[in-house]
Amino acid sequence: MVKIGIVGGTGYTGVELLRILATHPQAHITAITSRKEAGMPVADLYPSLRGRTDLAFTTPDDARLTDCDVVFFATPHGVAMSQARELLAAGVKIIDLAADFRLQDTAVFEKWYGMPHACPEVLREAVYGLPELNRAALKKARVVGNPGCYPTSVQLGFAPLLKERGLVDATHLIANCASGVSGAGRKAETHLLFGEASDNYKAYGVKGHRHGPEINEQLRRIADSAEVQCVFVPHLIPIIRGIHSTLYARLTEKGQSTDLQALFERFYEGETFVDVLPAGSAPETRSVRASNVARIAVHQPAPDTVMVLVVEDNLTKGASGQAVQCMNLLFGLPEETGLLHVPVLP
Amino acid sequence: MVKIGIVGGTGYTGVELLRILATHPQAHITAITSRKEAGMPVADLYPSLRGRTDLAFTTPDDARLTDCDVVFFATPHGVAMSQARELLAAGVKIIDLAADFRLQDTAVFEKWYGMPHACPEVLREAVYGLPELNRAALKKARVVGNPGCYPTSVQLGFAPLLKERGLVDATHLIANCASGVSGAGRKAETHLLFGEASDNYKAYGVKGHRHGPEINEQLRRIADSAEVQCVFVPHLIPIIRGIHSTLYARLTEKGQSTDLQALFERFYEGETFVDVLPAGSAPETRSVRASNVARIAVHQPAPDTVMVLVVEDNLTKGASGQAVQCMNLLFGLPEETGLLHVPVLP
Amino acid sequence: MVKIGIVGGTGYTGVELLRILATHPQAHITAITSRKEAGMPVADLYPSLRGRTDLAFTTPDDARLTDCDVVFFATPHGVAMSQARELLAAGVKIIDLAADFRLQDTAVFEKWYGMPHACPEVLREAVYGLPELNRAALKKARVVGNPGCYPTSVQLGFAPLLKERGLVDATHLIANCASGVSGAGRKAETHLLFGEASDNYKAYGVKGHRHGPEINEQLRRIADSAEVQCVFVPHLIPIIRGIHSTLYARLTEKGQSTDLQALFERFYEGETFVDVLPAGSAPETRSVRASNVARIAVHQPAPDTVMVLVVEDNLTKGASGQAVQCMNLLFGLPEETGLLHVPVLP
Amino acid sequence: MVKIGIVGGTGYTGVELLRILATHPQAHITAITSRKEAGMPVADLYPSLRGRTDLAFTTPDDARLTDCDVVFFATPHGVAMSQARELLAAGVKIIDLAADFRLQDTAVFEKWYGMPHACPEVLREAVYGLPELNRAALKKARVVGNPGCYPTSVQLGFAPLLKERGLVDATHLIANCASGVSGAGRKAETHLLFGEASDNYKAYGVKGHRHGPEINEQLRRIADSAEVQCVFVPHLIPIIRGIHSTLYARLTEKGQSTDLQALFERFYEGETFVDVLPAGSAPETRSVRASNVARIAVHQPAPDTVMVLVVEDNLTKGASGQAVQCMNLLFGLPEETGLLHVPVLP
Repeated sequence: MVKIGIVGGTGYTGVELLRILATHPQAHITAITSRKEAGMPVADLYPSLRGRTDLAFTTPDDARLTDCDVVFFATPHGVAMSQARELLAAGVKIIDLAADFRLQDTAVFEKWYGMPHACPEVLREAVYGLPELNRAALKKARVVGNPGCYPTSVQLGFAPLLKERGLVDATHLIANCASGVSGAGRKAETHLLFGEASDNYKAYGVKGHRHGPEINEQLRRIADSAEVQCVFVPHLIPIIRGIHSTLYARLTEKGQSTDLQALFERFYEGETFVDVLPAGSAPETRSVRASNVARIAVHQPAPDTVMVLVVEDNLTKGASGQAVQCMNLLFGLPEETGLLHVPVLP
Repeated sequence: MVKIGIVGGTGYTGVELLRILATHPQAHITAITSRKEAGMPVADLYPSLRGRTDLAFTTPDDARLTDCDVVFFATPHGVAMSQARELLAAGVKIIDLAADFRLQDTAVFEKWYGMPHACPEVLREAVYGLPELNRAALKKARVVGNPGCYPTSVQLGFAPLLKERGLVDATHLIANCASGVSGAGRKAETHLLFGEASDNYKAYGVKGHRHGPEINEQLRRIADSAEVQCVFVPHLIPIIRGIHSTLYARLTEKGQSTDLQALFERFYEGETFVDVLPAGSAPETRSVRASNVARIAVHQPAPDTVMVLVVEDNLTKGASGQAVQCMNLLFGLPEETGLLHVPVLP
Repeated sequence: MVKIGIVGGTGYTGVELLRILATHPQAHITAITSRKEAGMPVADLYPSLRGRTDLAFTTPDDARLTDCDVVFFATPHGVAMSQARELLAAGVKIIDLAADFRLQDTAVFEKWYGMPHACPEVLREAVYGLPELNRAALKKARVVGNPGCYPTSVQLGFAPLLKERGLVDATHLIANCASGVSGAGRKAETHLLFGEASDNYKAYGVKGHRHGPEINEQLRRIADSAEVQCVFVPHLIPIIRGIHSTLYARLTEKGQSTDLQALFERFYEGETFVDVLPAGSAPETRSVRASNVARIAVHQPAPDTVMVLVVEDNLTKGASGQAVQCMNLLFGLPEETGLLHVPVLP
Repeated sequence: MVKIGIVGGTGYTGVELLRILATHPQAHITAITSRKEAGMPVADLYPSLRGRTDLAFTTPDDARLTDCDVVFFATPHGVAMSQARELLAAGVKIIDLAADFRLQDTAVFEKWYGMPHACPEVLREAVYGLPELNRAALKKARVVGNPGCYPTSVQLGFAPLLKERGLVDATHLIANCASGVSGAGRKAETHLLFGEASDNYKAYGVKGHRHGPEINEQLRRIADSAEVQCVFVPHLIPIIRGIHSTLYARLTEKGQSTDLQALFERFYEGETFVDVLPAGSAPETRSVRASNVARIAVHQPAPDTVMVLVVEDNLTKGASGQAVQCMNLLFGLPEETGLLHVPVLP
């Protein structure tokens, strides 16, 4: 059994972690912290967990996190990096669902998250937690920066086109993405109210969104080229869960003579959590609802244009499911352990 | 032209007032106040009003409300009563969309709203703003307590059964109601988030809701009997606008031998804003969306049971539309002036 | 392993059966039939099942259902009874998710379903599939009439009040219920379109709904009294899954002096799938989303009135989950086998 | 008064026409036809119109359409062209909300709509009904092909960039669009059910959508260049009304040195129904809900990339509102007559 601590379990990624770990055969949650809700049984905040957990929120001081094998941070940005050194020193592994260990460029981190990085040396050893692209490193990692929800879908969609060089004009990628409202977390903000976000659709973050630099840093790494440039535009869909990315790139002559469907199928062959759909398909967000699967379709809407459609559940493959997938790798468990939920449809 | 001031126009009843008054041929809004947003053009907060109003929010001090003919309070409870004396002294009429002038029993007000009443003598002259039941008094009123959204629908549904005595057991009425989320206002509270309120349905206020005492006070007045008792249970529907009330009462023998359909049709004959549906109908909330109409159907699901179904738009007939209907009466305008929006369907 | 056939698996109860059985450790689906979709892989119709099942729809003729241990009918009313005799003769057990084996009164069946009953002798041995109220009989059953979605919630809510005699006026029960749209099935009907059912709320079936007679027949059995009368009024909520029942009864003097919270807790003690909430609670439909749990709260909104709130997922506890719960009983498996999904929230 | 006939008024564009015309001061509807619903009062099908119209559906034979001044066709494709000659001969003007008079290239029409064009000579005189781009011709038109909902938004967004030559690479335009479900009409099709389309998001028509050739034909006309190529990808949003288009183009050097915000503001100066938002804005679909306004924002997410965001109500500016705008032009009425509904927000 893996002894698990969760820091900051009151938000959506927290409750999704609890949903997944509640039926994970190797997971033993020893503590879940929340300063604000300390003392409250978890099932009082989330009645969906009644009868499935006896845990109560504790203060960080009472949580004895250094006794854990791994600690998940389902916290605002900046919390994980403030506790990382102490936990690592105690031999505890760290999986951060926030942004503290996503961006290797600390200047970019500081610009977009408005704080200096607290432990650059930990950041340098941190592994970016996208198993399909980074599996070997994750097996040996002590610190995981779990990817953002949008970046997960954008990378999974572009990776086959970038890993093989010369297929697309990588300097002009477009990621037109849309997310359900839970992606913004469980924050009491006006624009997230039902009365504001329901029966509505809009782009947002049009002057720049924090996932933009993350996407570009990782796409450059995948392509092994500093030239990659991706325009990223997020939109807000009135659904709770689900991300849909519509990706565009211009094909080179080499790209135009490549069998793209075969390229994608080969690239993701054997992957449990990435499903390449048959040619001509359009994936729906509901086809992955509450599951750890991403589904991908590749299209050629014009001779020199490739379009990739990607869906994932932003709370599962886009956050907590992926974090558990990383945990499985960190502890030598079969990667799919506890993650084979069938998507809930309808 | 009626010179109008609006206090606290940043919430949903405020923007609905603006939507309605923007095309009201006799309305001239001279000021709209918001301490928090002072200086901001109204159309910056509500882009739906771009090109339709040049107003900007002002501080209450700059608003010169005493120059108005009428002031609407689209504010939290307690604001209108703090300014009522001064406005009345200046000859300004008052329409309060909050609860300050709804409950004649100040002890009940204090219990449910947690504050003493600031001007009981103004309260005593205030008229309850339900035109269909209170038209004559409204024509002469200086102060209007605009009804709550739920109470409007419950009263319209029960009134025909209570005005004529002896039809139902008035000591055991049930009002099983459901409201769209905008009924809770534009407040940044967690339970109103899209991620919480969407794809969900629940009862709330089960230990008692502020509209319960208002419903009972008014139903007693309608029935002219202190014996009336109504159990009121609200539910939250994942829609923005709309209230649906399902009302139950046990019929007396007299009630059982009464043609209830005819009773309702007679009661509301000639009313522009109450539509009695043909026998056998079930009204939909969308059939009144964004309009000032309430629709009612009366059923007898068992020989000794009457069920009344009522729909209204909680922001229009349940709030701002009804307030303008009252304003029309206060100023001798045709009651339907500016209120004949066709419901938006689909 | 239980060898399972599914007749008519293209609808919502069919895909929900497949979702549940896909991770049921004792289930082996040998055939799923659909005349219309014969030859199509199940995962082509429901991409949520890609990678989780290799089944394809077959014609009934090719399905060799008589080799199964049990056959689920997820079909329109009337199909199961036409095949019941042959399957029983072959030693196959039957669980019908439609209405063929719900109503013992064949005259009532014929009136509401518009067809004569094809096998009254099979009906007589059929057991009504509500395990919490009928467990002993189910363990020995060959034929199960799986309850309707509304009746499940209404019975679970009223049962504690009716089993003990003399607590309520059982001749005037009210069941004010609301269901998500999936309760109507996956039928291409205009009133179920997103454009019609979204952003809307209404009562329906106001002249009588098929679940009314089922509710009354079962409540009479529970109370062991032919006097029971329940007015049942369904409403349509713009959510996919979830039923919320708000039940009202008048308390007798005995009822008023009973500790109702304790009564309910005692009644459902030890039940895995019925959760009695603490006093003062209001259950939300999302707290049981995609799970087999029903949650119940009991209230006394007036001294002589009891109100019971019940939520369930209409496709799970209200249909396919309950059917699998029955299957587990039929085959001597632990009742919760394969049914411990944690509700999906948010 | 303009004497108006409506052919096929039972769908969503039909009821939207009725909503708008019910308060249009110069509109007199003399007949509305539906073979299927002949004899039924319009308000029985659409209770939102109770008390606002006495019309009943009639058969086409009884409608005496040749006595009208103008006939709107809110019908499936192919109906208008079958009646056009007779109506024109009788001096009746025609506004077709379907596709019969949108595509000048009859081979393209035949390919995408699966029928030969019935009256090419009428098509040749037909004017494409986008007033902001085609006002002069519409004032003299006898036959109007009302634009598709997607093409309206795409053209309004790209027009300023194409009318002035050399600003963008017009051979590689991308129109990533999303529409509410009402855009598909009021058809009882499975994929449009609430249970399928709710809580979901997907691209569709990925192999080609009928609005693609319409968009390309018109963009070429606007740019006066046969080289224009636009990739058009529609997505389905779980909202009833609203289209959001996210348009991308690569800027030339000339384009990069142009003040795009000023370009757009100048282009739409004086337009009542096109609102160019301030720099940095992101328009929301709800900001135009149930109104005839389109709102546009222009962005430069990378130095050589322009992005245009456009919102409209697909049933109003995208269909019936635009049709009435055209009618106003055809009959010399002020263009905004009857069309100044304030958007319904929230």
